[in-house]
Amino acid sequence: MARFEPLPTVRFAEGELRIIDQTLLPGRYEILSLTTVDAVCDAIRLLRVRGAPALGIAGAYGLLVAISEGGGGNLRDRVDDAARRIAATRPTAVNLGWALGRMLIASRTGDVSDLGAVLEREAHAILAEDLAMSEAMTSHGATLIADGDAVLTHCNTGGLCSGGGGTALGAVFAAAADGRSVRVFADETRPLLQGARLTAWECAQRDVPVTVLVEGAAASLLSSGNVASVFVGADRIAANGDVANKVGTLGLAILARRAGVPFYVVAPSSTIDSAIPDGAHIPIEHRGDDEVIRFGGIATAPSGVDAYNPAFDVTPADLVDAIVTERGVHRFPYQFTGKR
Amino acid sequence: MARFEPLPTVRFAEGELRIIDQTLLPGRYEILSLTTVDAVCDAIRLLRVRGAPALGIAGAYGLLVAISEGGGGNLRDRVDDAARRIAATRPTAVNLGWALGRMLIASRTGDVSDLGAVLEREAHAILAEDLAMSEAMTSHGATLIADGDAVLTHCNTGGLCSGGGGTALGAVFAAAADGRSVRVFADETRPLLQGARLTAWECAQRDVPVTVLVEGAAASLLSSGNVASVFVGADRIAANGDVANKVGTLGLAILARRAGVPFYVVAPSSTIDSAIPDGAHIPIEHRGDDEVIRFGGIATAPSGVDAYNPAFDVTPADLVDAIVTERGVHRFPYQFTGKR
Repeated sequence: MARFEPLPTVRFAEGELRIIDQTLLPGRYEILSLTTVDAVCDAIRLLRVRGAPALGIAGAYGLLVAISEGGGGNLRDRVDDAARRIAATRPTAVNLGWALGRMLIASRTGDVSDLGAVLEREAHAILAEDLAMSEAMTSHGATLIADGDAVLTHCNTGGLCSGGGGTALGAVFAAAADGRSVRVFADETRPLLQGARLTAWECAQRDVPVTVLVEGAAASLLSSGNVASVFVGADRIAANGDVANKVGTLGLAILARRAGVPFYVVAPSSTIDSAIPDGAHIPIEHRGDDEVIRFGGIATAPSGVDAYNPAFDVTPADLVDAIVTERGVHRFPYQFTGKR
Repeated sequence: MARFEPLPTVRFAEGELRIIDQTLLPGRYEILSLTTVDAVCDAIRLLRVRGAPALGIAGAYGLLVAISEGGGGNLRDRVDDAARRIAATRPTAVNLGWALGRMLIASRTGDVSDLGAVLEREAHAILAEDLAMSEAMTSHGATLIADGDAVLTHCNTGGLCSGGGGTALGAVFAAAADGRSVRVFADETRPLLQGARLTAWECAQRDVPVTVLVEGAAASLLSSGNVASVFVGADRIAANGDVANKVGTLGLAILARRAGVPFYVVAPSSTIDSAIPDGAHIPIEHRGDDEVIRFGGIATAPSGVDAYNPAFDVTPADLVDAIVTERGVHRFPYQFTGKR
């Protein structure tokens, strides 16, 4: 039994992939039904569903959509083709490729007539494992949070980034569920404002006090002595513990170290890509200029001006005081080897 | 003769204070006429005019508005009262108080019948000195910029922040006017986007290539090795060289130091407050939540969520490789004493 009720971030029923449309929050809470692989790819690309663990689950269920969608040709080919298309939507999130790979391996077992049932079982297992991993990793993470702590966080790492239980922000909710008084400082997280929109929304839903700040204010906040720890998630972790996460994470880690504030990463072990020796080998997705130089349809910069818009950055392992997975609290130096 | 044409950021003519309305840029370039002290205070408070040197000039001319506005009572009292009201609009910018103090000292000379002429002369002198100081400090600053350099900057420190010649960004324009190939990376500078809106606009006006980034991307940009130097302005500098500037500056300074990128402050010596021993004594203005949690009238966070919104932060002097004023390039350690 989870310590707190997971959100229905990504679910599958009646041949449909149902997601909370995260682009509409906090103004509107709406469940979006995706019935074609195109719609699944678009939803991922447009960040209607985002967060490494949630992407893995959405990708897995996306293959069930490929089956229920119907269409010509060989069923296995259709599933393989859907996996290729979905995998190409977001290059940095390792969970997406990991979940799709796991689904394809499952698809090779048994007869093609069982394919739908086999894949459905596998996708449900991925969701169930994600919820169990969230429960475990947020419990481990909560041990790093004391009564009265203020936690600074970046982007959204609550239930919305996963099957519903969350990673880093989930650890704060687990501490709150354990009865500790906690508060959250949420970086607004430009350009897409996942902190202001999603993290603040989740905190408000769970009655955890939350204060939003622009990324530029994090340095003065950290140096004020009012922050006990920084908690962030991860999109991919290299074997040496280098962490790729939402752009802005590296800056926070450097500022936290200078301020003497511990910096923690909470992520499922499926985020660890032990085939990648260090962060220099992690591909970084660069996104379009408009995310930076337009806001709600309004140009914030003169036309013709371009933008530098990497979606992620890489934090070197030595700036990360602990990496928390469902297996426990790992301390620097890290050595993640072997299969996940 | 200035190396590049100053902008008409703050001017006075026919009893009116005329400013470029910076809240309308980059969408619209419009000169706003202010004919009452209330309008001057509102324009400062709403950041229609902003930037420490520009605020000093606007404040000085604001006292001429107090005279041309008319009204009852003693003329000197009216001027004194206007000075008090204008000074209270923005507590951190030392130039505002400095210019107003200088105007009040001038107002005590000669007969009250000469008051208008005396104050007009003094205000014009403040503008003329500002333009000359910009010319000098941007020339000194330009010596720190080599051909081919990419300069990262924060907020707006071009002609719009001053009488028209600028401070830190002006140094980039001076280097460009000297024929050196330069490019600008502009932090968008949340919450008010002075970088995206104003710095990018000024660069585009002067054909200097500019790329906008969110503050969260500065760490990865600096660690990429593609930035030669960081140039920022200052709102107040303590005697020991601690620098109060737009929130986000401290973070940039810490990141630049870690990346081995030199960090320069360009500001007129009127920004130096030698009565303040160090940055801990600089009052920091905190602004309203709505700047952070609303954008263009749209809520970006759920209702009821509050914001941490300091307008400035303080960068310790040891992170500042040089402070450039109209007098030259000062290197750490700093010891600013005596009268400005």
